[in-house]
Amino acid sequence: MPTTSPISRTQMTHDHRILNFSAGPAILPEPVLKQLQEDIWNLNGSGVGVLEHSHRGKDIDAVFEETTEACRTLAGITDSHEVMFLQNGASGQFAMIPMNFLPPARTADYVITGTWAKKAFEEGGRLGQVHCAFDGSETLFNRVPGDDEISLSSDPAYLHYCSNNTIYGTRFDAMPKADCPRIVDMSSEMFSRPWDYTGHDLVYAGAQKNLAPAGVVLVLASKELLESARQDVPRILSYPVHATNGSRYHTPPVFPIHTMGLVFKWILAEGGLEEMARRNDAKAGLIYDAIDNSGGFYIPHSDKSCRSVMNLSFKTNSPDLDKKFLEEATANEMSGLKGHRSIGGMRASIYNAFPEEGCRRLVEFMNEFARTNG
Amino acid sequence: MPTTSPISRTQMTHDHRILNFSAGPAILPEPVLKQLQEDIWNLNGSGVGVLEHSHRGKDIDAVFEETTEACRTLAGITDSHEVMFLQNGASGQFAMIPMNFLPPARTADYVITGTWAKKAFEEGGRLGQVHCAFDGSETLFNRVPGDDEISLSSDPAYLHYCSNNTIYGTRFDAMPKADCPRIVDMSSEMFSRPWDYTGHDLVYAGAQKNLAPAGVVLVLASKELLESARQDVPRILSYPVHATNGSRYHTPPVFPIHTMGLVFKWILAEGGLEEMARRNDAKAGLIYDAIDNSGGFYIPHSDKSCRSVMNLSFKTNSPDLDKKFLEEATANEMSGLKGHRSIGGMRASIYNAFPEEGCRRLVEFMNEFARTNG
Repeated sequence: MPTTSPISRTQMTHDHRILNFSAGPAILPEPVLKQLQEDIWNLNGSGVGVLEHSHRGKDIDAVFEETTEACRTLAGITDSHEVMFLQNGASGQFAMIPMNFLPPARTADYVITGTWAKKAFEEGGRLGQVHCAFDGSETLFNRVPGDDEISLSSDPAYLHYCSNNTIYGTRFDAMPKADCPRIVDMSSEMFSRPWDYTGHDLVYAGAQKNLAPAGVVLVLASKELLESARQDVPRILSYPVHATNGSRYHTPPVFPIHTMGLVFKWILAEGGLEEMARRNDAKAGLIYDAIDNSGGFYIPHSDKSCRSVMNLSFKTNSPDLDKKFLEEATANEMSGLKGHRSIGGMRASIYNAFPEEGCRRLVEFMNEFARTNG
Repeated sequence: MPTTSPISRTQMTHDHRILNFSAGPAILPEPVLKQLQEDIWNLNGSGVGVLEHSHRGKDIDAVFEETTEACRTLAGITDSHEVMFLQNGASGQFAMIPMNFLPPARTADYVITGTWAKKAFEEGGRLGQVHCAFDGSETLFNRVPGDDEISLSSDPAYLHYCSNNTIYGTRFDAMPKADCPRIVDMSSEMFSRPWDYTGHDLVYAGAQKNLAPAGVVLVLASKELLESARQDVPRILSYPVHATNGSRYHTPPVFPIHTMGLVFKWILAEGGLEEMARRNDAKAGLIYDAIDNSGGFYIPHSDKSCRSVMNLSFKTNSPDLDKKFLEEATANEMSGLKGHRSIGGMRASIYNAFPEEGCRRLVEFMNEFARTNG
């Protein structure tokens, strides 16, 4: 164990930040936080803070324009898709998607690769007719299916899947094949790597993992899909209503949208999605190596074929030892490492903003813990 | 006109804030902004910023507990009502209310005292059967009805009204009489004065005017009403789902909720709702006096019997002069004074956080403008 004693809360200085492995809400880039501290008092020298500006004034017009533009650049999308900033998170999308795009006589297909994908499936089933195209529950969602394992219904209204599974630490390497509109939940990995965004009719991501604080969900939707939307939905849940009004049908959550814009600019300045992917692969590689080289002390949850580089779930062979690991990690200023209650153990969430140095510190800790407890 | 020349954006220092009369999102108390600047970096010495904390950790537990408790104290409500923090703003409530509380065979009554009350009525009509119990459009919503002007249907599921009308600058002095559940939209005046909160089955307020930044809507709902809620609604729009889960059915918008808690504590520290009402009356009185004593130069929109102390709408006898007023106000560092496009002219929104000194500066400007242009 590292011999430095943990710092108690009262001893901590205001500036002192610890390592935050939280699965979401999660770590944000520190330069973005520092900009937000300024913008809360006075946005761009306007004399009014970002929280206090009218959402229809020119300063917030600029926030929307710049955030949308940076998003289009990152996603590589053109006029074929609309960019929307909505509320109610990914859970809200679970309802909006079938309400807008699943007509009464049709069926929608869902690939169930984890808890969240299953929740989307269940909400779809409450609001329309759904078909389970794959169910990974038998192996406790430790892997995602290949195309040959996904059994589509005939002529589905859409195929819904989750590209990165936060709890289980799995991900798709490429989008599934399908002859229908593809809809993907990318909440826990949005803009962490290059991806075929235009190959989807709808991409969504609750912001609070890789993009912004909680309170906004990013939606990219093809105009073709939007044109097919049902009209008999509450206006607040209608994609066309939000698209037509540039995400300002009603008062939008300006602050997380502004933050998202700053994060997008940060990603672009750091080198874009290729560079994010390079860093994320390297960071995850350090931890997976520690797991793989631990002689079985650490047991990874996900199959090697589909390891997430955002969420790394693992455990020891004993819940008591997991508990000790977590206690000592906390004492060493590493927070948010507790695994989801559905699988226990540990989970390191290392989103774009998480520094490689933090992964090295975790690996040092893991190695030392294995040495003294193995 | 004041002789000091306006300060250009580039000349402004980072610290310099101007007078913000925006109708919403609107001004927040400066001590709250300063606290937020700290909390964004490190919440309560936890080593993690408020945007980055898990919504299920103990630090955010405390945010929810303290915000809820302060809200209960301010509203004077007990266990009879649930406090909820939801998304989609007041516009979301326009849909949630009928979806949850208007069964197919029943009718809901709406009092239409302005644009927002009408939107609520229209959305209710898209989702169920509604009855207009009063319509103030003939007099351009310049007043609210007395009880004898409200014609209820027989046995309505609920009566919906808006206690303060942001655009027109009118307000109710007391809640309307009704033998059915009362539902009130208090978005633009929540916690600006003592009010019979427990006399309502549902009170809601989009936060971005008097409570917090945009992105959260505060809902107080009686348990009795919640027990009557329909089950056939999307889970994300179900009040019982949110109430049962302590507003954490899914990832909540932690930041505006935390801000709301700080604002609640600020109100309590300043003296509570009685003190807010005293200040707001005094502030509005200064401006109404300037209007009333202008010899007809300034024309108030609302009838004297029901003047809002939050939103003060007025104009001159000429759109050109209104335009000149707004330009010179902007040059004198007063922003957000443009009236809503539906009635034109000017509107001063002076919520709880708006300082009396700012009202004095506006009055000085108004008097000088009237003198030189009258």
